[in-house]
Amino acid sequence: MSTSIGELVGRLGGELVGSPALPVAGIAPIDIADASQVAFLSNRKFREQARSCRASVLVMTAADSEAVGAAYTGARVLTPNPYAWFARAAQYFAACNAVPIVPGIHPTAAVDPAARVAATACIGPHVTIEAGAEVADDCVLDSGCFIGRDARIGRGTHFFARVTFHARCQIGERGIVHSGAVIGGDGFGFASDAGAWIKIPQTGRVVLGDDVQVGSNTTIDRGALADTVIEDGVKLDNQIQIAHNCHIGAHTAMAGCVGVAGSATIGKHCTFGGAAMVLGHLTIADNVHVSSGSLVSRSLHEAGQYTGFYPLAKNADWEKSAAIVRNLESMRDKVRELEKAVKEIKAKKEET
Amino acid sequence: MSTSIGELVGRLGGELVGSPALPVAGIAPIDIADASQVAFLSNRKFREQARSCRASVLVMTAADSEAVGAAYTGARVLTPNPYAWFARAAQYFAACNAVPIVPGIHPTAAVDPAARVAATACIGPHVTIEAGAEVADDCVLDSGCFIGRDARIGRGTHFFARVTFHARCQIGERGIVHSGAVIGGDGFGFASDAGAWIKIPQTGRVVLGDDVQVGSNTTIDRGALADTVIEDGVKLDNQIQIAHNCHIGAHTAMAGCVGVAGSATIGKHCTFGGAAMVLGHLTIADNVHVSSGSLVSRSLHEAGQYTGFYPLAKNADWEKSAAIVRNLESMRDKVRELEKAVKEIKAKKEET
Amino acid sequence: MSTSIGELVGRLGGELVGSPALPVAGIAPIDIADASQVAFLSNRKFREQARSCRASVLVMTAADSEAVGAAYTGARVLTPNPYAWFARAAQYFAACNAVPIVPGIHPTAAVDPAARVAATACIGPHVTIEAGAEVADDCVLDSGCFIGRDARIGRGTHFFARVTFHARCQIGERGIVHSGAVIGGDGFGFASDAGAWIKIPQTGRVVLGDDVQVGSNTTIDRGALADTVIEDGVKLDNQIQIAHNCHIGAHTAMAGCVGVAGSATIGKHCTFGGAAMVLGHLTIADNVHVSSGSLVSRSLHEAGQYTGFYPLAKNADWEKSAAIVRNLESMRDKVRELEKAVKEIKAKKEET
Repeated sequence: MSTSIGELVGRLGGELVGSPALPVAGIAPIDIADASQVAFLSNRKFREQARSCRASVLVMTAADSEAVGAAYTGARVLTPNPYAWFARAAQYFAACNAVPIVPGIHPTAAVDPAARVAATACIGPHVTIEAGAEVADDCVLDSGCFIGRDARIGRGTHFFARVTFHARCQIGERGIVHSGAVIGGDGFGFASDAGAWIKIPQTGRVVLGDDVQVGSNTTIDRGALADTVIEDGVKLDNQIQIAHNCHIGAHTAMAGCVGVAGSATIGKHCTFGGAAMVLGHLTIADNVHVSSGSLVSRSLHEAGQYTGFYPLAKNADWEKSAAIVRNLESMRDKVRELEKAVKEIKAKKEET
Repeated sequence: MSTSIGELVGRLGGELVGSPALPVAGIAPIDIADASQVAFLSNRKFREQARSCRASVLVMTAADSEAVGAAYTGARVLTPNPYAWFARAAQYFAACNAVPIVPGIHPTAAVDPAARVAATACIGPHVTIEAGAEVADDCVLDSGCFIGRDARIGRGTHFFARVTFHARCQIGERGIVHSGAVIGGDGFGFASDAGAWIKIPQTGRVVLGDDVQVGSNTTIDRGALADTVIEDGVKLDNQIQIAHNCHIGAHTAMAGCVGVAGSATIGKHCTFGGAAMVLGHLTIADNVHVSSGSLVSRSLHEAGQYTGFYPLAKNADWEKSAAIVRNLESMRDKVRELEKAVKEIKAKKEET
Repeated sequence: MSTSIGELVGRLGGELVGSPALPVAGIAPIDIADASQVAFLSNRKFREQARSCRASVLVMTAADSEAVGAAYTGARVLTPNPYAWFARAAQYFAACNAVPIVPGIHPTAAVDPAARVAATACIGPHVTIEAGAEVADDCVLDSGCFIGRDARIGRGTHFFARVTFHARCQIGERGIVHSGAVIGGDGFGFASDAGAWIKIPQTGRVVLGDDVQVGSNTTIDRGALADTVIEDGVKLDNQIQIAHNCHIGAHTAMAGCVGVAGSATIGKHCTFGGAAMVLGHLTIADNVHVSSGSLVSRSLHEAGQYTGFYPLAKNADWEKSAAIVRNLESMRDKVRELEKAVKEIKAKKEET
């Protein structure tokens, strides 16, 4: 499907330098775009490539446009954030190319008569929707999804195939939940009694805001008494584990394999690299950024980047450094003894 | 649903100080409980809060009761383990409020005629039960579960939606398996031959005892020739991976994202913090406790708490410490040289 | 089911020393095999056990056979790689004992009329196959699998129950995908704009080669624009996360819980221990081996074994070493001061 750059700029904003009638058929990276495509300069280090770019339209900042100069002869869209413009343009083309959604309930779905499913929703094969559940307008629930009793799914939310959304949980509008995610499983709560574990029933919910994305096979447990809360705009990648009673602030993003233990409270606009882990009952401030593979073992009250992983080395070198790490105390003691000895030597010297 | 404190103490034990007829409608934390609720003092540091608690009944130890004194004027239940009492009381109220289970097989379920499903079991929509499988009395298999050939599920066990339980595996009584768990997938076994991997068929089973809980999206692989064994009372949180031929002792508990490599033998009453990892072919004694994010790389023959993760720091500080860790050998060499030099200086001094 | 050792050697190769007519009913470990079974000596340290082995046939190298000598009196198969012979023999016996596959589509499956499913394929209950998808000869799709639009599944590939294989993805011949795996979910791509995340549509595919195995609950994301590629013979264990646009070279194997961030390019014949992590946009050479629990934070251009995890210790000892690691900079500074002081002392001594 093709459109004109004028049409795109009308939808997405930016200042067009060139003919609005110019047809554009898609987007492509700056080095391989052809004359039917829009390309993007989102990093000044690609300015040189921009000069020889063959795209019909190049999206960039005004500063980059000046630096690129006349070497690039196509049309330009000037915008302060070319990468966000690129994302929205890609959404536009993806929507044009998408398979149309046909509302209705597949005959193999098992929808309880006491569930409320909007007429504009699309319910796939083998879906189960229990009594009291609400599925709002324009929702898409792909094959094999499970929606528990009294759960609520907001307008325009899309569950990919085989999502589990347990009883009484809620998600807002425009959410995206990927396949295999499990939302609202029991939190891991037990009391110890004479060597055995007594299960503590988990009666809270999971409540997710608007514009939340949940990755494939990610799990978010329901709260014990209160709720587990995921605020608006949070983005969770695949295989993330969020334990019971966590609270994750708006627009925080977590990469794959992150784990958050119970009752952790995480601020807004945080980012977590892959496989980062957060211990339970901690508080993390807004704008904290945790590096991949790092374990957060204490509350972080100050914004900033935090890291804690053992540096990789050739195995033989690691074995040496690990052996020393194991005995760092003895090395520190030796250094202390040396300090003392040197001090004594100096003192004696002064005496003489 | 409401009951009396006398009824509860009759079921759960403890010494009641107050009127047995006192009605109680539920449980709540000590700081927010109202006069219709039972509250719990399970940690002496909340004694001060207990004095102003408004709950109609406060459950605590005899020692705490004495310390709290007359400031708290409601009824009391004295028990050596208030937290376990709380768990059991919560179970009681949860059972009262639970949606009643209706035995029977949902018409969309695909149950092989050669499977044996108890008449009291409840089989949800889109469940598959293969030939030879046995589902005992009072089991609940929620929507989309898969039970392979000749698998056996003990009395009163509950599988949440979309559990996979492969051929010939077994689970005992009162088990709980959460959504997305996969029990009995192939172990990861290959022989290397001329640069390619030759699959070793995995013909063992997974055998789980009574009172086992398995978390959402947790995976437990079948053994290669022998079985993978999970003993009674083991509790596994979400996204745990148990490889083939592991043996996990009774009442051991593992938090989310733990991984256990093949043929590890883990004792009874152990605990593993989130994302702890255990290498293969190790033996871990009873009562070992492994901290979150720690890799167990050798057998642990002694009970106790073990830890091994890199301490978190501001990224700039971590970069400095990591650079030194990488070169610890050179630092150790310098310390040795210094020791030698100081020794020589001292020796010369004694000569003079 | 029983066969003769001559039949097995005819299929699997090796030099038979003994009667081809000798019946063999299965395989067993060297220490417990009985006279109806084949045993294997794949490690010279078990030569002593081989001398008293009761198996009717012992498979070993010529060198081991000579070392074992006449103490073992049964038949022998001599082969340079007894472990690979064992794997193939185990495959043979497993195939003999397997439940026969009955081609056809289960009546509860939802197969779009515009999908092409080979007549020899076996499609289980509650499977969904969307329009344009192709399922080749001899494929087995167990209960609850989801095959998206225009996806292609090569000859003889087996999906265990509840696999999700999204639109347009491809897998070659003889693949094995375990339960709960999700192939082709959206990659995790967002542009930041005024504090919110703008989703970048993920329009690439996942393309898997021949003889690939994917473990239970493993996730492999589709590429953003280009494809995520898994070459022939790659073996992925359970709960692995492969992010968008990764490229994994042929015959690389990854153990459970490994994570690979976006756009990583990994060579052929690599191995990754459990829970190893690879950061994004890195390049890893052929024949790199990464130890369990290690984070790869830079490209590795040289083959070899790499490691990086904090050594486990009793918690009290770890606390001491971790405290020192946190302050390594101050220790390094002290060592530098000591070096300077000792140098000065020596210099003064020479002056005198």
